[in-house]
Amino acid sequence: MRKQNVSGAVIRRLPRYYRHLNELNQAGVVRISSSALGKSMGLTASQIRQDLSCFGEFGQQGYGYNVDNLLNEIVDILGMNRGHTAVILGVGNLGRALIENFNFGWSGFHLNAAFDVRPEVVGQIMAGTPIFHIDQLENYLREHPASVGVLTVPRSIAEEMADRLVKSGVKGIWNFTNTELNIREEGIFIENVHFSDSLQTLSYLISEDA
Amino acid sequence: MRKQNVSGAVIRRLPRYYRHLNELNQAGVVRISSSALGKSMGLTASQIRQDLSCFGEFGQQGYGYNVDNLLNEIVDILGMNRGHTAVILGVGNLGRALIENFNFGWSGFHLNAAFDVRPEVVGQIMAGTPIFHIDQLENYLREHPASVGVLTVPRSIAEEMADRLVKSGVKGIWNFTNTELNIREEGIFIENVHFSDSLQTLSYLISEDA
Repeated sequence: MRKQNVSGAVIRRLPRYYRHLNELNQAGVVRISSSALGKSMGLTASQIRQDLSCFGEFGQQGYGYNVDNLLNEIVDILGMNRGHTAVILGVGNLGRALIENFNFGWSGFHLNAAFDVRPEVVGQIMAGTPIFHIDQLENYLREHPASVGVLTVPRSIAEEMADRLVKSGVKGIWNFTNTELNIREEGIFIENVHFSDSLQTLSYLISEDA
Repeated sequence: MRKQNVSGAVIRRLPRYYRHLNELNQAGVVRISSSALGKSMGLTASQIRQDLSCFGEFGQQGYGYNVDNLLNEIVDILGMNRGHTAVILGVGNLGRALIENFNFGWSGFHLNAAFDVRPEVVGQIMAGTPIFHIDQLENYLREHPASVGVLTVPRSIAEEMADRLVKSGVKGIWNFTNTELNIREEGIFIENVHFSDSLQTLSYLISEDA
């Protein structure tokens, strides 16, 4: 059961819980206390209890959390059990990295297809993913709707491609173009992976004592 | 002049200011009011004034901000004028994407070199960046110290490579391995780019009304 009005900060931490709990699960841990979970994640036990209380009562006093139940709950909260699908626009180095090396299934997505314009990639099947010409985007999405479009195109065409994705019915855009998209449509969500923002934050941190 | 005790949330927003102000600068805008800047960034004027007040007095009532001054100040705050340097460990698809397509200079970094083990890439020069064998890492860094190590290696060796970077004197690790690093040394900063965390957050957002 998903709860409404969970804070953005808690949501942002859930993927970390998912990663840690998966590791515990694979290590054969059945139950864990909030203090042990906190220690392994660098959070306090009370922080853990507070985060997880947003989603109901998973833990029992003196008993801890059942790792498997908690994992299933997080999967449900994050919507990773909804059969979400994705298409990638742009099969350059980064698009290729996502197609060949990124595990979409681990986040509950199936990568249906990728699109580009270059003759050397169009028509190929890359790590199981077919690559079509961008001219086929609308036709393809009409027959195979996608939940999310992944943008790894040059930033000069980012806006245009985002518009085409939205018109074709995607609900979310995973944006790697290092530019802000001006999507005004209601109910469309954009998640940015701005590499330069991240590197500049690191620059700040390492410069602090200079 | 850098101020201490600026909140993490403000720091995280500064790269966005940098991006927007750069665009304004390139468009020839010399001065901008906090309300106009806010509108273009989807923030309120008072949020803008509050953020920028952390760093001193840049704006004047009824006069706005001088775009060029504000840009220079943000560059200084983020430490982008310190001559930071970087090396990349791992020249797979993602490493190649960073070497060939990511503009390190735009964030104040110079990418000195990259390291891998595969004979087909070791010894090459890729987009101006020499690629060495990982065995040469320590020797290279002794002669050419790097501020930051970029980890795009398989997660199975992420921890080991991070340790070698830290022992060789880097101050920060830009971590793309989708795993949490256990670095205990003081004064070492880790900035994670966890693709799956980002996609799972998007999954949450598009699932909200389901």
